[in-house]
Amino acid sequence: MGDCIFCKIANGEIPAATIYEDEEFRVILDLGPATRGHALILPKTHAANIYEMPDELVGKAMILAKKMAVRMTQALGCDGFNVVQNNGEAAGQTVFHFHMHLIPRYEKDGAMVSWKPGKLTDETREELLEKLK
Amino acid sequence: MGDCIFCKIANGEIPAATIYEDEEFRVILDLGPATRGHALILPKTHAANIYEMPDELVGKAMILAKKMAVRMTQALGCDGFNVVQNNGEAAGQTVFHFHMHLIPRYEKDGAMVSWKPGKLTDETREELLEKLK
Repeated sequence: MGDCIFCKIANGEIPAATIYEDEEFRVILDLGPATRGHALILPKTHAANIYEMPDELVGKAMILAKKMAVRMTQALGCDGFNVVQNNGEAAGQTVFHFHMHLIPRYEKDGAMVSWKPGKLTDETREELLEKLK
Repeated sequence: MGDCIFCKIANGEIPAATIYEDEEFRVILDLGPATRGHALILPKTHAANIYEMPDELVGKAMILAKKMAVRMTQALGCDGFNVVQNNGEAAGQTVFHFHMHLIPRYEKDGAMVSWKPGKLTDETREELLEKLK
């Protein structure tokens, strides 16, 4: 995609702080980090979101997320690790090129306020099972 | 793992609202949903977190996340979709059996307050590149 900034970064046309690269992916430090070490996995080929990602490539992206989690946890000494992948504006996606957030977490870093758990009522459960099963 | 509740749910020893099942995974509705349709992918074999997941299985989990994203988005008519995978208490993990959150998102659902972006300074960037490259 000619105008996609993550295409350009992933393929080295725009410089970025790269911590890993192979034929299919580049991993860069996020410019607006949630925590120390926050990085992004970018595929070199364009897909706007998870819906558009080929199965094999999305699988490889997660294997890479695991490898980076191991390496980053060891190098940074973090206490936890979030892998987050957002699709669509309503989900917080701001650049429309598939990416995975790798977020090292530290005790009491206060970095991410997670969701407030609701309650799954019997009625909703049955309705959802009907729709989704 | 004898005492792991997600092992028991994944393997059908404890009933749960199942929306998908195959030989390696079960997908259930979350009992404390962030949004309507919030579901969890559970592998049937025990791994506490992403670090312990075999590469092939973690790749398959992400391919399944994609398939579920497609199916759930179509069935629920949601506007976006988060895939979230937490490791360690510091990262919000509460059950220590690897799982992936599938969170359908709806315009202005206010479900998840995401992180507040910080700033990657030149100094920190160089230090992290040193550690992580």
